[in-house]
Amino acid sequence: MAVDIKVRGYHLDIYQHVNNARYLEFLEEARWEFVEQHNLLELFASQNLAFIVVNINISYLRPALAGETLRVLSAIDTLGNKSGAVKQKVVLLKDGKEADTIAEAKVTFCLVDLKTQQTVPISGNVRASLENMIEEEL
Amino acid sequence: MAVDIKVRGYHLDIYQHVNNARYLEFLEEARWEFVEQHNLLELFASQNLAFIVVNINISYLRPALAGETLRVLSAIDTLGNKSGAVKQKVVLLKDGKEADTIAEAKVTFCLVDLKTQQTVPISGNVRASLENMIEEEL
Amino acid sequence: MAVDIKVRGYHLDIYQHVNNARYLEFLEEARWEFVEQHNLLELFASQNLAFIVVNINISYLRPALAGETLRVLSAIDTLGNKSGAVKQKVVLLKDGKEADTIAEAKVTFCLVDLKTQQTVPISGNVRASLENMIEEEL
Amino acid sequence: MAVDIKVRGYHLDIYQHVNNARYLEFLEEARWEFVEQHNLLELFASQNLAFIVVNINISYLRPALAGETLRVLSAIDTLGNKSGAVKQKVVLLKDGKEADTIAEAKVTFCLVDLKTQQTVPISGNVRASLENMIEEEL
Repeated sequence: MAVDIKVRGYHLDIYQHVNNARYLEFLEEARWEFVEQHNLLELFASQNLAFIVVNINISYLRPALAGETLRVLSAIDTLGNKSGAVKQKVVLLKDGKEADTIAEAKVTFCLVDLKTQQTVPISGNVRASLENMIEEEL
Repeated sequence: MAVDIKVRGYHLDIYQHVNNARYLEFLEEARWEFVEQHNLLELFASQNLAFIVVNINISYLRPALAGETLRVLSAIDTLGNKSGAVKQKVVLLKDGKEADTIAEAKVTFCLVDLKTQQTVPISGNVRASLENMIEEEL
Repeated sequence: MAVDIKVRGYHLDIYQHVNNARYLEFLEEARWEFVEQHNLLELFASQNLAFIVVNINISYLRPALAGETLRVLSAIDTLGNKSGAVKQKVVLLKDGKEADTIAEAKVTFCLVDLKTQQTVPISGNVRASLENMIEEEL
Repeated sequence: MAVDIKVRGYHLDIYQHVNNARYLEFLEEARWEFVEQHNLLELFASQNLAFIVVNINISYLRPALAGETLRVLSAIDTLGNKSGAVKQKVVLLKDGKEADTIAEAKVTFCLVDLKTQQTVPISGNVRASLENMIEEEL
């Protein structure tokens, strides 16, 4: 799943590159789009579940500059019993084609029952949906 | 009431100045501190009220640069029946003393009852507290 | 000129509404798109000019919630000798149509020569371009 | 080295917890303070060096709520020839004492020569300063 983001003046910091905290918003934007496109928001809401991030491991490979267009690619990487991981890649678009990798991240998550505030196993139709979101090649 | 904020690399944007959206966070930071110091948070909570911003008019007078220390001054400016205004000034500190004005803002607010989501008159002990927060000279 | 933005979880604050500082990023996003579509970025770069915001007057009319889609409309409002104003409106999209106004803003700007850091008159082909961006009805 | 940050309404997101991108700003704030207290900013500036983050591995252990005060602790963890790592811990303050760990992160960095935009070995007085910033027990 791909979300394109154009780098704007307010994304930059003192080094004139996209600030490292801002990438986490880019990744979150892409994850919302990702779960939405797979109709997971309704499923989460109907079961009172929240998608909670427990770890982010992000590598910044090459700075992104004003005016560049970035594509954020997202796929489910692994699915355990009580946690899973989303793989996300930020790539530079050159003439509309995916070129250099700017950043890559692994985002580990749990599902939390909003009533009990406890993590719950990833099961049933939520698990089935997430399994459909696995993409080996990313 | 004064809150000091040091300008960091992540506050800047493409022009190497503090970004204009970031100032609104500086102002909000100072308003939380302001209402907290006057014990308004407990009062709001006990009456189920929220402080809702309805207008911000901010003038950017001089850019702020990395490493500078800014002081945000806040005072209640006016109090009407159903709305009021906070005056806020961002000044540069030079050798610990207030120097050039960087930005100044007038923030108009209402009080909203969180149950009904309706604005309510500013009255009783909330009004009394807010009146104590008026400062003519800012 | 219209830019659509979907409200995400990270845009919200303690009141579960889009935070007031975040709107300034939405407005800035729309202004970058606006000047880009009119090829002003190249023109600014070739003349070493920066578009500097000197005042923002923004009214928050109705809170925006997670999952809503907002449209940011932008037009040049007025053009003086040394400053101008952009009118911007954030409207809620309902079934793809522009519905309630969420926020409206007037953003006053100057053009600054990046070498001298002085404001310069709005003239020549930059002025001609900006005049083309005036839209009475917004 | 410790920096205290009070959680405000604008730090929260849809789940009413501090948003995960915001923690990266808290960590960056603490790193600026950390290098500043060890006079590294002047040293970096005099040698035209930038501190560039190449990886962040952050674990979110417990959500942080409005009104809580967080302490961000920072120490140099490891120093290699061309890269190093900062260990950072965000802990909840209860009655002024460090209590639960909210988040912990390892931030891997390089030094980049701003003229050549190439990474350079960590050596000389910069290395000596960074060695002084190692703290085993964090």
